[in-house]
Amino acid sequence: MTNQATIHPLDDALLLEAREPGIFTGRTTHAYWNMVGPFGGITAATLLQAVLAHPQLLGDPLSLTVNFAGAVTEGAFTVKATPVRTNRSTQHWIITLEQPGPDGQMLIATTATAVTAVRRATWGVTDTPMPQVESPGHFERAEPAFRSQWLSSYEMRPVSGNLPAVWDDSGDSSLSQLWVRDAPERPLDFQALAALSDVFYPRLWLRRARQVPAGTVSITTYFHANREQLATVGSGFLFAQAKGRNFAMASVIRRHNCGAPKA
Amino acid sequence: MTNQATIHPLDDALLLEAREPGIFTGRTTHAYWNMVGPFGGITAATLLQAVLAHPQLLGDPLSLTVNFAGAVTEGAFTVKATPVRTNRSTQHWIITLEQPGPDGQMLIATTATAVTAVRRATWGVTDTPMPQVESPGHFERAEPAFRSQWLSSYEMRPVSGNLPAVWDDSGDSSLSQLWVRDAPERPLDFQALAALSDVFYPRLWLRRARQVPAGTVSITTYFHANREQLATVGSGFLFAQAKGRNFAMASVIRRHNCGAPKA
Repeated sequence: MTNQATIHPLDDALLLEAREPGIFTGRTTHAYWNMVGPFGGITAATLLQAVLAHPQLLGDPLSLTVNFAGAVTEGAFTVKATPVRTNRSTQHWIITLEQPGPDGQMLIATTATAVTAVRRATWGVTDTPMPQVESPGHFERAEPAFRSQWLSSYEMRPVSGNLPAVWDDSGDSSLSQLWVRDAPERPLDFQALAALSDVFYPRLWLRRARQVPAGTVSITTYFHANREQLATVGSGFLFAQAKGRNFAMASVIRRHNCGAPKA
Repeated sequence: MTNQATIHPLDDALLLEAREPGIFTGRTTHAYWNMVGPFGGITAATLLQAVLAHPQLLGDPLSLTVNFAGAVTEGAFTVKATPVRTNRSTQHWIITLEQPGPDGQMLIATTATAVTAVRRATWGVTDTPMPQVESPGHFERAEPAFRSQWLSSYEMRPVSGNLPAVWDDSGDSSLSQLWVRDAPERPLDFQALAALSDVFYPRLWLRRARQVPAGTVSITTYFHANREQLATVGSGFLFAQAKGRNFAMASVIRRHNCGAPKA
């Protein structure tokens, strides 16, 4: 039993019960519900949580690739996180999320790989400079753009490229910039960052100014920040930016299995 | 037995023998040897080859993430490609490459996930325009920049950002542009494209103008092109471009397990 009054909704969603080493059970929560399943970002964060909760964990996250293989349905799920290769300073993970299918057999709904590593201080520089934008206080918090509960679990303050006000096929760019943080506020960690990486609505909607069925099929997150840098952010805002590079023929049919418009 | 006189080195490197559905044996080849193991791109292509050779394959590649977990040693290896989830138009794969370790037990050297899908024609546009550069004939073929056999398996014609002539810490950009194709010429396919995605030398070398031990730890390739577009390229040159976004504290120690300079 968890006390909803004292646990943050993100930590509540990330609650996993260890069945045996590397095998966890969890369940979907209302706070991160999307339209027909959980917000993809919370699924990504949950898979990472299984890695970080594993007794054999080495280091901190370096990269995470999550493939949304099928719909996650409401209720319980099983996460398996396996450290398939552990080196002196790096560790390689294969992770899956399973739920019982219609026939009772377990169906893999999500696959992932992750690399964790002991980070060391070396030469460093960023060639992705912070854009010159006003501070978060200069921008209004956006109302939820569509009816999904998870949108209320983030405080989003769009700087540019907010959801089109009218769907008139007038789009010419897919760049979105926003200030964002968990709502209610919560100190940033790798799990929160994994979830935040998926807060962007489909680039296609903005580029076309046309709302068509679309969903994330695969997302890769590289964690350039280390633990100390995340601690410095605390519960403050993050600047987030997304831009589509290519919009092309792709697969469709099943919601949550597509990265492009429905034909 | 393969006839070296009639098979292209890439097809030779991609030769897999099916042991049972989804389990293949292959071996490293001289043509794609790097310094202490095979070129990472050929490993990526080999894992994709196992997917494409699987009797249950659905569609064409959409995305491929390869994590280089440990050194691949010279000789035989086993590739396991498992379609863990097949939907109506998308299929999700987990792939591993294993070799016997020092104690004889099988060690996972590479992990990967892939998404394949039946592509359909939809609205499309590219927001990554082709830069205005002269045709391949305007640029000299580069001599192998360092002593690795695999470099001779590509015809690389650098446009900009070639390997620094002197290592004097004078770097200020990590952008490299080049025309590239297989050597000898070979019609482009998804496997060749997967390998080509890894032809760039470490961005760090260019950005610092300093050659430090570095290797690929994780690479994700998104296949925006479809089968027909690849056929149009044929054995012609591809324009390839790479740029580093961030150089930071990262893990090191083992060559091929690092994405950043040695401390």
